[in-house]
Amino acid sequence: MIKRALISVSDKNGIVDFGKALAGLGIEILSTGGTAKLLRESGVEAIDVSEVTGFPECLDGRVKTLHPVVHGGILAIRDNEEHQKTLEELSITPIDLVVINLYPFKETILKEGVTMEDAIENIDIGGPTMLRSAAKNHKFVTVVTDPADYDKVLTEIKENKDTTYETRYDLALKVFQHTSHYDTLIASYLGADKNPLGNIVTVTYEKVQDLRYGENPHQQAAFYREVGQQTGTLVEGLQLQGKELSFNNINDTNGALELLKEFEEPTVVAVKHTNPCGVASGKSIFEAYTKAFESDPLSIFGGIVAANDTIDEQTAEKMKDIFLEVIIAPDYTKEALAIFSAKKNLRIIKLTDIKAKKEKALDMKKVAGGLLIQDSNKDLLEKTEVVTTIQPTEAEMEDLVFAFKIVKHVKSNAIVLVKDKQTLAVGPGQTSRIWALQNAIRNSTHSLEGSVMASDAFFPFSDCVEEAAKAGVKAIIQPGGSMKDGDSIEACNDKGIAMVFTGIRHFKH
Amino acid sequence: MIKRALISVSDKNGIVDFGKALAGLGIEILSTGGTAKLLRESGVEAIDVSEVTGFPECLDGRVKTLHPVVHGGILAIRDNEEHQKTLEELSITPIDLVVINLYPFKETILKEGVTMEDAIENIDIGGPTMLRSAAKNHKFVTVVTDPADYDKVLTEIKENKDTTYETRYDLALKVFQHTSHYDTLIASYLGADKNPLGNIVTVTYEKVQDLRYGENPHQQAAFYREVGQQTGTLVEGLQLQGKELSFNNINDTNGALELLKEFEEPTVVAVKHTNPCGVASGKSIFEAYTKAFESDPLSIFGGIVAANDTIDEQTAEKMKDIFLEVIIAPDYTKEALAIFSAKKNLRIIKLTDIKAKKEKALDMKKVAGGLLIQDSNKDLLEKTEVVTTIQPTEAEMEDLVFAFKIVKHVKSNAIVLVKDKQTLAVGPGQTSRIWALQNAIRNSTHSLEGSVMASDAFFPFSDCVEEAAKAGVKAIIQPGGSMKDGDSIEACNDKGIAMVFTGIRHFKH
Repeated sequence: MIKRALISVSDKNGIVDFGKALAGLGIEILSTGGTAKLLRESGVEAIDVSEVTGFPECLDGRVKTLHPVVHGGILAIRDNEEHQKTLEELSITPIDLVVINLYPFKETILKEGVTMEDAIENIDIGGPTMLRSAAKNHKFVTVVTDPADYDKVLTEIKENKDTTYETRYDLALKVFQHTSHYDTLIASYLGADKNPLGNIVTVTYEKVQDLRYGENPHQQAAFYREVGQQTGTLVEGLQLQGKELSFNNINDTNGALELLKEFEEPTVVAVKHTNPCGVASGKSIFEAYTKAFESDPLSIFGGIVAANDTIDEQTAEKMKDIFLEVIIAPDYTKEALAIFSAKKNLRIIKLTDIKAKKEKALDMKKVAGGLLIQDSNKDLLEKTEVVTTIQPTEAEMEDLVFAFKIVKHVKSNAIVLVKDKQTLAVGPGQTSRIWALQNAIRNSTHSLEGSVMASDAFFPFSDCVEEAAKAGVKAIIQPGGSMKDGDSIEACNDKGIAMVFTGIRHFKH
Repeated sequence: MIKRALISVSDKNGIVDFGKALAGLGIEILSTGGTAKLLRESGVEAIDVSEVTGFPECLDGRVKTLHPVVHGGILAIRDNEEHQKTLEELSITPIDLVVINLYPFKETILKEGVTMEDAIENIDIGGPTMLRSAAKNHKFVTVVTDPADYDKVLTEIKENKDTTYETRYDLALKVFQHTSHYDTLIASYLGADKNPLGNIVTVTYEKVQDLRYGENPHQQAAFYREVGQQTGTLVEGLQLQGKELSFNNINDTNGALELLKEFEEPTVVAVKHTNPCGVASGKSIFEAYTKAFESDPLSIFGGIVAANDTIDEQTAEKMKDIFLEVIIAPDYTKEALAIFSAKKNLRIIKLTDIKAKKEKALDMKKVAGGLLIQDSNKDLLEKTEVVTTIQPTEAEMEDLVFAFKIVKHVKSNAIVLVKDKQTLAVGPGQTSRIWALQNAIRNSTHSLEGSVMASDAFFPFSDCVEEAAKAGVKAIIQPGGSMKDGDSIEACNDKGIAMVFTGIRHFKH
């Protein structure tokens, strides 16, 4: 039976009504500072915690409830005779209901220009302690940290003078989810510039939305975001129309954005099954889209298209000709949006800062029972060293770097063929490098004469050079570093192909 | 200047020496219960906290340090005149050094047969509160929760009578990393059977090892494990010889294990770049390895091999003929190990419970600024419905299910061709389904006459059936569910091919 409640909230939403209702049920209310004042102003009687403890609130509120009379009242085991005797001896009255929410640490650190001092002052000490005390003793004590739970708790108390064990258990779980989230945010704020690969890694996420299903319909899934502004990422995107994003949409769109960020000039990226199928730069987004589409007019069907500048009427008109899952761009003209509005299901996302890049970020790969964590792959190349006697032309060199940017984002083993800043052939995800190349060539609908080629890793043999030569490739870019680099260089010189080493490998799995 | 320390540790390692040294430097020591007793027995003077607070330790130790005299002493801002005046008025002496570690919640829940009551009793309330108080006030207060830090702190105090701000900051960060880890473990213990896709998801991992580098040499990386036993996963594997596992080794081996778990009979899986390149079952592991090797004798070079039964001498003899990165199996005969020992770099991993499967597990995909979380893909098929007039033979049906198990683990779009429980062709990671099939056929060195085919998703058109028929495929398994299923069924009936629908799609990206 709930006789006494302790209420001390930072978020005052709904607290007056809740307090009134509790008082109306004959429950005695203890409170502190601002909460006590508010309750009293609203006509709810509230005893100051300091009255109960005989100790003043002090140090600017840093110490209010950290007292054995409070925590003994929360933590005592109700069906333990010794504990009950102790309470009597020490004149401690049990506290059966704890209603607390914490200093807004998250809201504080998200404020622009927040100082470290401000942030630290907003680390709540007393609040988490009471929440944790009450949650530990949830067999007997009810703990509420989320105003959304006031109604449920009130209803149960009205019906049975107490909450059910099941409710108390769920509320206790919620407390530890909340305190772990809270302390993870503090640690990540304090440790933002420190080694992210420490002995213990704890990460916390907030739900953006439940998803209809996961990678496949029989898998449940949800989409989460990191706390704080995530400029330039999909979680900041604004969906203007269309069906809800699916798990695979999100994964593909993320891949498209990562690739798109490699480019400054007007560029369009089309992605299908997490691999780019058409990428092109041009003088305008229309030109870039037209070239990206023509890269592979079949694979783009049902794909994701990302553009790094405004989509205008002409581009929208061409885009609407085929079935696309998602279009994402920094903006759209009114005319473009009017055209898309005829395709109700087409997801249109506006991501204003689409070119924004994060300096540092972590990449994670889930494995059964564990997790691989690495720096995300932010570099492109450490050099562009021509290793052949044949030199690439200026245009070829531009295409080589363009192709290397793309091959970085194709699943390994990966080969990309490019001409005039347009992909002509993409060979993703093969267990053998020569197959990636052969597949790319065979599946291309373009003449590859005069094209350039990028490989995500070095050539173990000269076979890729031979094959590329047959297709008409004139220049190759690759990391270099194979024991047999010499063979590939010799083959290039033989076939009149220029070759550039970058020094950086780009496996992606 | 550090004048007073509060010491209360659950892990007594090194505490006596540390306490002695502090006392030797003239630092007054407050302590509680067992720690105080141990210090005194070792000749270190220690004042009971209860003496300072005037309040007894009570409720079986549930309440010891939760007192304003303790927390005021920790939390007071040293250069704030008001705070200093309050301390004087309330006769509170500042506490400058806090040495605490927590009840062993993790160790408790990892004990076999632990009860919920035991676990809950081991949720520390007073400890985290003091740690968090001290960490909040790290501008002035030093907090130590890891015995590994005793030496560093002692050295600094000896040199300067205090620690440096930098050290205090790092120690405070360590506290919040520790408390967030601690509460995440509690939440995940209490919430193990609850909805894993809640509004907030916090996950915590412990480092297994730093890795030389990540997916590529310019990326830093480390390997982490979930807390608790992870039976049947790589984190429980015992490395018997060879170089350290690399990031890509771990990722590939994990993939090989997940696929291997689909099979009960002796089976060998070879993986390269996260795609299976050879999979076979046989009467023995030798037969299975021989068939898996012959599936694709080129791609297996530099690959990962996983076997679900003991590797014997004959198998080891054959395995040593080629360069493999990793071999993982539940056991090895002495003779097999002797053979492998000649190849010093070859990583040999023993994973006893290699067939163990986890009922429920979460899969995560990192996207920039967020995270996708889903149930891991545990199902295989919900039916094997023959949709053609032609029926598969019993042997074909076995091969169909065998092939479907494999295609589930190949990157999408994926096609697998099988005969007699041996992969003959694998087509991974294409943006178009027909390409996956064409690549698989072209790159195979086998006759495909009489083989069966699996597709990870439905056929949008009948072109895959036509292509399969040309190659000699006799039966097909796929999820079904396309608007144009009728076309594919008709084509099968035309070409004398049996087709089975499973009702379950297996995209994997």
